[in-house]
Amino acid sequence: MSKPLTPPDIILIKPQMGENIGACARAMLNCGLDKLTLVNPRDGWPSESASANSAGALDIMPSPTVFDGTQDALTDYHYVYATTARLRDMTKPVLTPKAAIEDMMARIGEGQKIGVLFGGERAGLDNDDIALAHAIVTVPLNPEFSSLNLAQSVLLIAYEWARALDDTESRQLPQRDSAPATHEEVYGLVDRLEQELDAHNFFRSEGLKPTILRNLKNMFGRADMTEQEVRTFHGVISALIGKKVK
Amino acid sequence: MSKPLTPPDIILIKPQMGENIGACARAMLNCGLDKLTLVNPRDGWPSESASANSAGALDIMPSPTVFDGTQDALTDYHYVYATTARLRDMTKPVLTPKAAIEDMMARIGEGQKIGVLFGGERAGLDNDDIALAHAIVTVPLNPEFSSLNLAQSVLLIAYEWARALDDTESRQLPQRDSAPATHEEVYGLVDRLEQELDAHNFFRSEGLKPTILRNLKNMFGRADMTEQEVRTFHGVISALIGKKVK
Repeated sequence: MSKPLTPPDIILIKPQMGENIGACARAMLNCGLDKLTLVNPRDGWPSESASANSAGALDIMPSPTVFDGTQDALTDYHYVYATTARLRDMTKPVLTPKAAIEDMMARIGEGQKIGVLFGGERAGLDNDDIALAHAIVTVPLNPEFSSLNLAQSVLLIAYEWARALDDTESRQLPQRDSAPATHEEVYGLVDRLEQELDAHNFFRSEGLKPTILRNLKNMFGRADMTEQEVRTFHGVISALIGKKVK
Repeated sequence: MSKPLTPPDIILIKPQMGENIGACARAMLNCGLDKLTLVNPRDGWPSESASANSAGALDIMPSPTVFDGTQDALTDYHYVYATTARLRDMTKPVLTPKAAIEDMMARIGEGQKIGVLFGGERAGLDNDDIALAHAIVTVPLNPEFSSLNLAQSVLLIAYEWARALDDTESRQLPQRDSAPATHEEVYGLVDRLEQELDAHNFFRSEGLKPTILRNLKNMFGRADMTEQEVRTFHGVISALIGKKVK
């Protein structure tokens, strides 16, 4: 989340429960979005239950702007996306969240102000609201159980935004309380193990010994040990052979 | 969601509120996951509040399995991921959700049984539970506001699963109530518009006319019209010039 693109605004049309507005705010801020607009919230605004359920997000974000109608709320926007699960008889492009975010980023990069519309809990957006949007975003989900709750819908769009900007390494190395072991340390451990196993007649057949050793080396190699872990394992061997540790 | 890979199981460790377990189940089923395991749920199981908040998901999914301890719950698993927001002093690889799902899919393709651990609402997973996992998954979010609620965490992992399997076209053509207009229909409309504008002395400067016409053609081209829309627009022109419509 390092690039300086202004995130899209989230616009909730006729949301019902304050709790859900709070959960939307929390999900937005989790993903770096902080501009929330409310159109005609059923239970009024401000809302104590919204604040209580936002985990502090509503205290950090700018105060949501509240409008009586969708058209008034959209006055300043250059491009607006309507989120809907159901297919509608609307002559508009239908984008996946990923494609919508790419489209948004290109527009925002050109200075456009972008909004994403979400309908209320019970019925989603009505067709008159969708008619005011330029494009539709539909999250492809389990077709037999596709109804997301409001905050979950907001989270998925906000998450796609954060995901597109994120440059976290997909796989970070194990966190270590000790330096990674060198090759000499790891295979020195295996050599010692081999000697002790020899001394304890582990390798009954000399023919199988190379295979068993190779397996052990592979295993210790995969374990990607730290220096401390190598020392611990030396202690384990010492203990098992009855040698007094230290 | 067409490939026949078995999704990972979701394992909630010491979840507290039934509502949140229900919301997790709903988020899972939204994304095609249906195996839920509960370890030591604080308010017991079954839970009416869980059912009420699952939007029917708990009625459709197999009944969750309930265990008293994490280790017992993990007996059959081949590979387990622990989700955590905080960096822990744990010597394990840390994956993004995307990388974790790729890793999971490779393992599931080889027949491994996979589980993803989530901690309770208040404190997440404790270190003893994380020690039983093979890898850590951390969702890269707003570092100044990264605490997701339980169902939101489950949703993001489940969504990455569904997203990786999904093959929806990223941009679908506008849904149309009528066939797309042909080139002849669209530019016939522009030609008629030009004639009527000529007749109404719109083009005061002959020098600017080509530019204006080019702009109009670009605009009508972008609009990607249907046959019906072309007919409607002919009616609009007729009305504006005072010609009786039919």
